Amino acid sequence: MNQLSFIPLGGIGDVTKNMYLYEYNDQILIVDCGLGFADETMLGVDLLLPDVSYLLKTCLPKGVAKKKIVGMLLTHGHEDHIGALPFVLPQLSDFPIFATPLTAAFANEKLKDFNAKKRVETVNSNDNEKRIGSFSFSFIPVTHSVPDTSHIFIKTPVGNFYHGSDFKFDETPYDGKVSDYAKIARVSSNGVMCLLSDCLGAERKGKTPSEISLTTNFINEIRQCRGKFFVTTYSSNISRLNQIIEASEKNGRRVCFIGRSLIKAKDVARRLGYLNLKKDMEVAIDSLGNYQENKLTLIIAGSQGQENSAMTRLANGEHREVKLGEEDVVVFSSDPIPGNETSVYELVDTITRRGTKVIYAPVMRDFHVSGHASMDELEQLIKLVRPNKLIPIGGQFRHMFAYKKLAERLGYKKSDIFLMEDGQELLFSEKDIKYGRTIQVKNVYVDEMSGEELEGFVLRDRQKLSEAGIIVILAEVDSNNGQLVGNPDIIVRGFMYDVKRLSSRLTHDFRKTLGLRKGRVTNWIYVRKLIGETAERRIYKDLRRRPLVLPVVIEV
Amino acid sequence: MNQLSFIPLGGIGDVTKNMYLYEYNDQILIVDCGLGFADETMLGVDLLLPDVSYLLKTCLPKGVAKKKIVGMLLTHGHEDHIGALPFVLPQLSDFPIFATPLTAAFANEKLKDFNAKKRVETVNSNDNEKRIGSFSFSFIPVTHSVPDTSHIFIKTPVGNFYHGSDFKFDETPYDGKVSDYAKIARVSSNGVMCLLSDCLGAERKGKTPSEISLTTNFINEIRQCRGKFFVTTYSSNISRLNQIIEASEKNGRRVCFIGRSLIKAKDVARRLGYLNLKKDMEVAIDSLGNYQENKLTLIIAGSQGQENSAMTRLANGEHREVKLGEEDVVVFSSDPIPGNETSVYELVDTITRRGTKVIYAPVMRDFHVSGHASMDELEQLIKLVRPNKLIPIGGQFRHMFAYKKLAERLGYKKSDIFLMEDGQELLFSEKDIKYGRTIQVKNVYVDEMSGEELEGFVLRDRQKLSEAGIIVILAEVDSNNGQLVGNPDIIVRGFMYDVKRLSSRLTHDFRKTLGLRKGRVTNWIYVRKLIGETAERRIYKDLRRRPLVLPVVIEV
Repeated sequence: MNQLSFIPLGGIGDVTKNMYLYEYNDQILIVDCGLGFADETMLGVDLLLPDVSYLLKTCLPKGVAKKKIVGMLLTHGHEDHIGALPFVLPQLSDFPIFATPLTAAFANEKLKDFNAKKRVETVNSNDNEKRIGSFSFSFIPVTHSVPDTSHIFIKTPVGNFYHGSDFKFDETPYDGKVSDYAKIARVSSNGVMCLLSDCLGAERKGKTPSEISLTTNFINEIRQCRGKFFVTTYSSNISRLNQIIEASEKNGRRVCFIGRSLIKAKDVARRLGYLNLKKDMEVAIDSLGNYQENKLTLIIAGSQGQENSAMTRLANGEHREVKLGEEDVVVFSSDPIPGNETSVYELVDTITRRGTKVIYAPVMRDFHVSGHASMDELEQLIKLVRPNKLIPIGGQFRHMFAYKKLAERLGYKKSDIFLMEDGQELLFSEKDIKYGRTIQVKNVYVDEMSGEELEGFVLRDRQKLSEAGIIVILAEVDSNNGQLVGNPDIIVRGFMYDVKRLSSRLTHDFRKTLGLRKGRVTNWIYVRKLIGETAERRIYKDLRRRPLVLPVVIEV
Repeated sequence: MNQLSFIPLGGIGDVTKNMYLYEYNDQILIVDCGLGFADETMLGVDLLLPDVSYLLKTCLPKGVAKKKIVGMLLTHGHEDHIGALPFVLPQLSDFPIFATPLTAAFANEKLKDFNAKKRVETVNSNDNEKRIGSFSFSFIPVTHSVPDTSHIFIKTPVGNFYHGSDFKFDETPYDGKVSDYAKIARVSSNGVMCLLSDCLGAERKGKTPSEISLTTNFINEIRQCRGKFFVTTYSSNISRLNQIIEASEKNGRRVCFIGRSLIKAKDVARRLGYLNLKKDMEVAIDSLGNYQENKLTLIIAGSQGQENSAMTRLANGEHREVKLGEEDVVVFSSDPIPGNETSVYELVDTITRRGTKVIYAPVMRDFHVSGHASMDELEQLIKLVRPNKLIPIGGQFRHMFAYKKLAERLGYKKSDIFLMEDGQELLFSEKDIKYGRTIQVKNVYVDEMSGEELEGFVLRDRQKLSEAGIIVILAEVDSNNGQLVGNPDIIVRGFMYDVKRLSSRLTHDFRKTLGLRKGRVTNWIYVRKLIGETAERRIYKDLRRRPLVLPVVIEV
């Protein structure tokens, strides 16, 4: 039977680790390959991968493989759409990967970092339709919070799909490149069997504000600042970086980039001509001393309060090169990602205690806008594409539900809109659509060692974690001076070691680490993390293993 | 020297567990005695108490006591201002406690529940100034999210204090009782040495919206609802309950209260005439079957996604008497308390999966307003009171900092505004003000056994916890069906027990608990909590002890 199978391996219900399969006969086309972010139940791990065991089972080993991956397409350069490439690609057979220039450059930078051999090929969105296997595709430029974001029009022998991943319809994006409405309408005029649409903003009325609205706010805020001006934002938000650079230049300030992920993104974007940064506008971190404080803007990584980020170190007074002063201003040009609220607000409190003015959402909404479409734009996309069926992707269940209601208001029947789960197959034939198999997908974990950078990752899933064992550390800390009381109690399970010796070494390490920060404890989360990280380092150094470390800090 | 010492034991920097001491010679006057809420680092405990060891040391034993508590005043009936009474009072000597009628009733209800002997005496805010020891005080009615909220004007031999705890200036509160501006101005005309002011809203521009703005929204939303109409809110928000009752009555619906804390608050408020609920308007939970679904409004406890609350059980399909239907609507008439975002949004997702419409903040702001003053109202209070010095209370550091900036804009000097820490003493003399001792205060923990109710609490601090030992449970759960895989691994430390036997019993219990909810796991936080609670119950049953239970759920 002439049948197309659509299977999301990730990206449904939890926003992140996007990965979608289009399967026709023995051919599989993949869209995106993103990372997920762990929640508080996933102790000891920070990142998730989409589960590709279905691909491993059906497409490998080569000799007896039933199916074949014919290619992969990447919609845009965000971690949750390209971040899993270095982990997933080495497991799979060879196939071409396509993306627009900046997306490809971000992806290739990542692959190089991990010494992966594969590279992503660059296509331009005005290229002709490209063919891979039984599929053909073309990229459509849309606006989002990273330049070169695309929707993808995918032709299959059964019908056409409009893969409408993360987007907004910004009429005045900073780089002037608006979404290609004409192309959306043109390709869709061939008929669209199914629209897959971003739904994260489906609960928000109206239209998402334009990025351009922020430039003036940056210019004015910088003008009023008498000390150093700090901004923290997502590294990939190149337009935001451009705005900050422009606002700094207009106020006679030079710009310094702090944090590896940010510097990497800046270098890539500049090389490809996406970042408008004159050579003499930039100051290296070790030359900051040559400039007056009110002549400096510092763009710094760590807007989510990540424990090891440059921003957190700065707030805690632990950054070697830069200190916070009372005349300084810190702007969070980002929203806390749901689940990060506590750590972001802790960070804001810590900065405020240094007497520094902090501007952050939701208190002050003038320095960040969402990259996702609100109701009006989602409707607009539906009206341009005029699909037969709809699947909301990239949202949690409540966003998918809101998208369904929105589509119903436009006249679609309940049965036209499919709310899916990861691993759920949808079978499209020329006649009808029905649910197919349920492919078992589970969370695959990645352990992030280094906070904001990808370099130190060690791939291991939960099984490996439990092989590596677990160590529980009960440490008593005096709340008045933040110092260790007595020796920590250690419980080890799953590996053999001289616990007494480990305990004495850990005691020594904890005293040293905590000794650097004497004073009343105001942030217990941070103390607990310090204890955990110190233990992880020691255990890895002495034992060359990475057990699950559970620090329990008892306040005395 | 004629000197007044002000010491916050709680309420500075973390909003909750409010407790403030005014000390003159050997006399101590206390304002408020509230609970705090634990954060994610405080494994195994949910609640905090203010640390009263300073009072135990200086005021007890009676014979040789250097100081004496002359009385306690309560500003309003919220948990973070009165919730610690049952735990703290039995430790202290006898003294009178005063509050306005509803506050006193809420507090006495709590004391009765815990079989505590003490009772709070009722004062009316139009009563004359009252004297206790060297102090005299009078209550001033202000608006907030619980009726009968007061500010307190406190006269001391050194000077006058205006204790401006949680408030807003609502010109159209639902009960019509506006703040008594005339009294604020009149008492303050005697001169105010220091204003203590709520500062939680010090970052918000303008004025906090009035409670009255919500009534029409409730009426309209209920009118459109074709099934049962659910509202979840804070139990003590009696005006909100009145609005929901009015809106229901206007739409021909009866009201049912679900959840013990809510029923208790309703009963108290009704008895004192604060709740406008006609007898035939109320339906008991076991009579719901006698009414059509579209004739029912259900007010239900658990707006913060608390694990054992009625709302969570309802969402999970585990509530015995009530089920969620597709025509039903659930309104969250509350904001997530910072730190609760993840559990509230998980709850919203779970409800949405049942096909039920959910209305919640920040998506829809029409069903909740804050109870705290924004900038304009904070300024208004300063202008009415015209104090010499100011202390922001009841906020985190960033709110205190914003309050300082606000006061500076009104012409106060930096040195007029004191940003304090818990345990920090401030010494007022007629001439000057200076920092005094630092009293060591630590977190005192309370273990909450029952989710939303206070009844099951067992008081124990961290020391007791560590005496009771720790048990780590490593359970493998299949993500596809939510069932236990193999036997859990148990690590026990700090108490002796036959681990093998415990392990086999726990295996049995886990299988039983998880067996009730077969199906794909979407909420790992909930699974982890289920495992933890089941273990706590078993261990208490078999061992009569409550060790710290650390459940680690491994997804397979």
